[in-house]
Amino acid sequence: MTYYGAIEAGGTKFVLAVADQENQIIEQISLPTETPEKTLSAVQTFFKQYSLKGLGVGSFGPLDLDPKSSTYGWITNTPKVDWQFFDLLSYLKQHICNQVTLTTDVNASCLGEYLYGAAKHVHSCLYYTVGTGVGAGAINQGTFVQGAAHPEMGHVIIRRMDGDDFEGICPFHGDCLEGMVCGPALEKRTGKLGKLISKEDEHWTYVANYLAQSVYNASLTLDPEVILFGGGVFKQTHLLPRIKSAFDELNHGYKKIGDQDSYLRLAALNDQQGVLGCLALAKQTERPLIPD
Amino acid sequence: MTYYGAIEAGGTKFVLAVADQENQIIEQISLPTETPEKTLSAVQTFFKQYSLKGLGVGSFGPLDLDPKSSTYGWITNTPKVDWQFFDLLSYLKQHICNQVTLTTDVNASCLGEYLYGAAKHVHSCLYYTVGTGVGAGAINQGTFVQGAAHPEMGHVIIRRMDGDDFEGICPFHGDCLEGMVCGPALEKRTGKLGKLISKEDEHWTYVANYLAQSVYNASLTLDPEVILFGGGVFKQTHLLPRIKSAFDELNHGYKKIGDQDSYLRLAALNDQQGVLGCLALAKQTERPLIPD
Repeated sequence: MTYYGAIEAGGTKFVLAVADQENQIIEQISLPTETPEKTLSAVQTFFKQYSLKGLGVGSFGPLDLDPKSSTYGWITNTPKVDWQFFDLLSYLKQHICNQVTLTTDVNASCLGEYLYGAAKHVHSCLYYTVGTGVGAGAINQGTFVQGAAHPEMGHVIIRRMDGDDFEGICPFHGDCLEGMVCGPALEKRTGKLGKLISKEDEHWTYVANYLAQSVYNASLTLDPEVILFGGGVFKQTHLLPRIKSAFDELNHGYKKIGDQDSYLRLAALNDQQGVLGCLALAKQTERPLIPD
Repeated sequence: MTYYGAIEAGGTKFVLAVADQENQIIEQISLPTETPEKTLSAVQTFFKQYSLKGLGVGSFGPLDLDPKSSTYGWITNTPKVDWQFFDLLSYLKQHICNQVTLTTDVNASCLGEYLYGAAKHVHSCLYYTVGTGVGAGAINQGTFVQGAAHPEMGHVIIRRMDGDDFEGICPFHGDCLEGMVCGPALEKRTGKLGKLISKEDEHWTYVANYLAQSVYNASLTLDPEVILFGGGVFKQTHLLPRIKSAFDELNHGYKKIGDQDSYLRLAALNDQQGVLGCLALAKQTERPLIPD
C-alpha cells in the first residue's frame, strides 16, 4: 500500500492525515499546538505505522522558503516563542518522511480549494483566513505567488474609519489589518469572545470595511479570478455580505468583476482545504505548481 | 532578413521599434497618442517596409486580456474617449502583423527589466511607473501576474496623512493612489508643473508616503524579489530615497528584505524597458512567460 501524509500546522492546532494513492483519507487527527517537542513527538507517533511516499506540509509562519538560504525550511521570527527559528523541514525529513514539500498554511488551503473546492475552475485565486491571525495565499496561473519568501497579506496597511479609536494589537504595525480584525483584536475591542459578539455590534462595520479594503487592494494587485474566505471569524455568516457591500462601495464601478457572488465566496471544503492541499503537495501529481 | 516589431502604446506617446533576429534595434520612432485613426495610420506607415515575423505590444488600458471574452484584445473603459472600446488586437492583426502578443504597458516594461535590466537575476519582480497615471506590472516565478484581466495597482486605497486635504483626482475613487500622486494630481495640488515643484515642497512627503504604503502592501501581497520604479515623476531624484525611508517606517522591522537598496530600485534601462519587453513578446523565445 502506498501512503501519503499531510500536516496542516496551524498556530492553535495541528491536523494530521494519511491518504492512499486514490487520495482517500485513511486516518485523520487533530492535536493542540504546544511546544515543538510535545507536538512533534505526537506527530511522529501518528505517522509511525505508515511508510509514507511523500509528506505535504502547510505551516504557520513566517517560514523561510528560499532553497538557497541557510535557514531554508525553518519557522523564523514567529511570535510563538517555542517555535522561533525551529528547523521544521529537517525535523520532518529526519523523523517522518524523506520526501517533504513545505509551504505556508494558507498556501496549502488555497491549493486545496484550487484543486477540489470553490476555485476548481480557475487558474488564479486568492484565499483568506481570519481567525487567531489573518493570512492569505494566492495562486497565479497555476503557481503559488511567492518570491524570496512568501506573502504576508495579513499585515497590510488599511485606512482607519472615522470613529474607530481601537489602537490595534499587531506587535509590529499596531493597526495593520491583522492588528485590527483578527480574533484576539475583536476580543480586545469588545471585551467578549468573538462568537459572543452580537452581529449588531458596531465593530463589525470596521472589521468588514478593513477586510474589504484589503481584499480590494489585493484584487487590484493580483487580479485573481475568485477570492475565498475561511477561518473561524467567517463562522459569522453576516460578515461576508458586509464585506461584499463595502467592496462595492470602494470600487465605485471601477473594476469589472462580473457576478460578485461568484467572485467573493466562502471556502467550500469545510475546513478540509488545508489537509487536501497538503496531500496534493505530498503527491505532486496534480496541476503544475512550483511550491518552492 | 527576419524582423520583429514592438509597439509601446502609452497614454501620451507611442514608441515603435523594429529589431532583427539578434534583437538589435534597426529603427525606432516615437509618436504622440492622438485618435486611433491618426496614430494607427502612422503606425502602419512605420511598419510598412518590414515584413514582421511577430509583433509585441504593451498598451495602456484597461485591456481585455481574457481570450475567452468577446472583447478580447480591446482597450475597454479608458478615460481616453477616442480609444474607448477600441479593438486594438484585431486592428493590429489585420493591418500590421498576423502574430501579435498583447499585454499591458507596465507588464511589457516589467518584462524588459526582468530580461535585461534591474530584475535580470530574479524570478519575481514588480515594476511601478508614475507619470500621467500610476500603474504596475508584476512577474511571479516567470509568469505575468494576471487573472481574468490584469492588475490595476495604481488604484489601490491608501491611508491619508494628517494635514493632507487634497481631495484626489481619480474619477472613480477620488483619493486612491493614482488620484493622489500621479503627475496631473501633483500639478493640481501645487498649481505647478511637476518638474517645477521644489523638492522642499511638503506635497512630496505625501506623495512619497502614499507610494511607500502601496509598495509596502504590494510587497506583502506579491513578495517580489525586487521592486522597480520608472516613469516621469521618478526623474525627481529625491523621490526614491523618501519612499525608502517611509517604507522602513511602515515596516517597523517586520518584513525581512535584506539590502533595501537592492530591493527598491530605479529601472535600469533608460526608458527602453517597454520596447525591449515588447520585442521579447514578439519573439517569445525568452524565459517562459504566459502573456495571455
